[in-house]
Amino acid sequence: MSLAPFPRAASETGDPLLLTPGPLTTSRSVKEVMVHDWGSRDATFLKINKAVLERLPEIVNGAGTHVTVPMQGSGTFAVEAMLTSFVPASGKVLVLINGAYGHRAKRILDIAGRATVVHETPEDTPPDLAAVEAILAKDPAITHVFAVHCETTSGIRNPIEAIAALVARHRRRLLIDAMSAFGALPLDAAASPFDAVAASSNKCIEGVPGFGFVICRRDALAETKGNATTLVLDLHDQWQGFEKTGQFRFTPPIHVIVSFHQALEEFLAEGGVAGRGGRYAENGKVLIDGMRALGFETLLPDALQAPIIVTFHMPRDPAFVFQRFYDGLKERGFVIYPGKLTVADSFRIGCIGRLYPKDLHAALAAVRAVLADMGVATPLARAA
Amino acid sequence: MSLAPFPRAASETGDPLLLTPGPLTTSRSVKEVMVHDWGSRDATFLKINKAVLERLPEIVNGAGTHVTVPMQGSGTFAVEAMLTSFVPASGKVLVLINGAYGHRAKRILDIAGRATVVHETPEDTPPDLAAVEAILAKDPAITHVFAVHCETTSGIRNPIEAIAALVARHRRRLLIDAMSAFGALPLDAAASPFDAVAASSNKCIEGVPGFGFVICRRDALAETKGNATTLVLDLHDQWQGFEKTGQFRFTPPIHVIVSFHQALEEFLAEGGVAGRGGRYAENGKVLIDGMRALGFETLLPDALQAPIIVTFHMPRDPAFVFQRFYDGLKERGFVIYPGKLTVADSFRIGCIGRLYPKDLHAALAAVRAVLADMGVATPLARAA
Ligand SMILES: Cc1ncc(COP(=O)(O)O)c(C=O)c1O
Ligand SMILES: Cc1ncc(COP(=O)(O)O)c(C=O)c1O
Repeated sequence: MSLAPFPRAASETGDPLLLTPGPLTTSRSVKEVMVHDWGSRDATFLKINKAVLERLPEIVNGAGTHVTVPMQGSGTFAVEAMLTSFVPASGKVLVLINGAYGHRAKRILDIAGRATVVHETPEDTPPDLAAVEAILAKDPAITHVFAVHCETTSGIRNPIEAIAALVARHRRRLLIDAMSAFGALPLDAAASPFDAVAASSNKCIEGVPGFGFVICRRDALAETKGNATTLVLDLHDQWQGFEKTGQFRFTPPIHVIVSFHQALEEFLAEGGVAGRGGRYAENGKVLIDGMRALGFETLLPDALQAPIIVTFHMPRDPAFVFQRFYDGLKERGFVIYPGKLTVADSFRIGCIGRLYPKDLHAALAAVRAVLADMGVATPLARAA
Repeated sequence: MSLAPFPRAASETGDPLLLTPGPLTTSRSVKEVMVHDWGSRDATFLKINKAVLERLPEIVNGAGTHVTVPMQGSGTFAVEAMLTSFVPASGKVLVLINGAYGHRAKRILDIAGRATVVHETPEDTPPDLAAVEAILAKDPAITHVFAVHCETTSGIRNPIEAIAALVARHRRRLLIDAMSAFGALPLDAAASPFDAVAASSNKCIEGVPGFGFVICRRDALAETKGNATTLVLDLHDQWQGFEKTGQFRFTPPIHVIVSFHQALEEFLAEGGVAGRGGRYAENGKVLIDGMRALGFETLLPDALQAPIIVTFHMPRDPAFVFQRFYDGLKERGFVIYPGKLTVADSFRIGCIGRLYPKDLHAALAAVRAVLADMGVATPLARAA
């Protein structure tokens, strides 16, 4: 047997490190708690589930005013449940789009037959708040505004606080897709009012994938009875199930929920949003500084960049072949992500999950090694 | 520390044995494979997922003609996806009801705005095939028939082969909820034609909960484009995603799928439906014979009883208190299930999951001990 020609990075369980927007690298303990069986009416499980539902609103300063409705499936299931449960048949939604997840919300609303109006900006550009204000002012039929907190397509941080203030001033309701931001970027339900925010188990809380959740203002949720267009995605009915029996209406992904509970404990032990978001911000700084030193260019200026996932322009050097770059990093234990932009050729590197600054330093060393293997000179020539 | 006053049964991972309709007791190996991380585009994961999708149709003799479309969420998500994707807005469904899951299908169709007609029989009675035939003969607007293979409400085995033959003779399409039967009761797509059959990860294949799947006749699935009433539950779109990219459209419950793959290997190693169904039939026989010897009465005659879950009438002896019975069994390591019948006071004991005849013998010993503790004389007085 020959020795590996280079050190290979690995997680606590020996897996490649996932520098992606999720599913992410998780701690060993988060996964080990799944090696048990529970019935869906098991008292231990129901207690764990209750703790999860009760703690999540605290993360957005919604304790007392907001309730969590979990939704089996992925994050998109939670987003579709939120949109089709909160927006009545007579509603109309202003959809703020600057990436794939804004487009997805629009598609969900179209399928559900809900009226929409779109404010779209390029993938590297936040919504134009003056234009949003003008749309709201002149169209009283608009009942709801939909916004994405961190648009994972580019990694842009949308100005959710300013959007919430504007929506509140115009007395409309705000629905947020905070999938990739929840737990890493602060969101304050008291300061920035919203009716609902959707996220999932396998992003910044660092659980494994298998369910989404919607944190709902209780009074707004109470008004949604009968809105839903399906049985399974009906948030009001799902909530009423918990209110009446403390149980899911339909079989929950028990193992994933127990695992998420462990992840939530670890999140709180790290200091909640301040601690978790702080670590991700450090990760992001190490990554961006290191990549810039090699001549890579980020899509976004620092002021718009969320510490979640970073989009880099594809280098122009013809010796740079993305598939070889990807494979070389994978062999060294780092999984990166292809681009999803429509505006520019790019790739993405995530800084979320059970990753520490030392892991990003190691990833940079691997990037340097792979570039050298490909014969790409650094610093790179400018991309665009 | 005092010794436990009685032996407590436990699974391979030290958990109580789940004598329920699912989630079930699973093997240790099925859970241990989850202690890893994978990205959702990870080649290892995609290969595992592909193997799962390809092997499932073989279980119903559908290799070559049928494709599997997995659906994130629970079994009900798969049923709602099947109904809303296969039945077009202009369709009309004859729903065969003899329990809660037939009622649930009717509710899903009502919410989706699909026309229905119902043939309902009591929970201990299979559909009246002559009546079904008459309904089909006189209503040409009916496009689809929906049937539940094993109605888990009672444990009744519905005559799916005879239903399929009748539906085919009348040139209508059959949609089956085989949630609790799949992998335990034979179903043959060539002999008993159907357009789709829905099941889930956490029943007789003995995986952990977190997704459902629909095995679809490919030619019928190809006709369903545009039928769905949602984005996430659109089976045609989900299928097209796999055809185009080999990937899920939205984040899959990776750990649950990897675990299900292991469960499927163990299912095949046990001899597939013959082996697995054979073990459950033995479990059921031990259970029913033993309970009858104590004077318990089953709801169903043996000819209608599926070897999945058995409904027992509540004993009449006033010393028998169900909660104490339940708790006493739980303390001894056995979790049973409350009744779900509307017609009679009852409880249920399952014989599926990683359970062997010796476990059912041990459960019977625990039943005897708990009855003695409560001062209930055996054999019991007749229940009804
Ligand atoms: C902002 C945003 N919304 C929605 C989703 C969809 O989540 P899922 O893939 O779990 O359905 C994602 C996934 O990355 C996301 O980043
Ligand atoms: C026949 C049948 N259909 C549907 C379901 C619903 O499955 P789930 O609880 O996974 O949504 C069950 C669950 O036991 C079932 O037995």
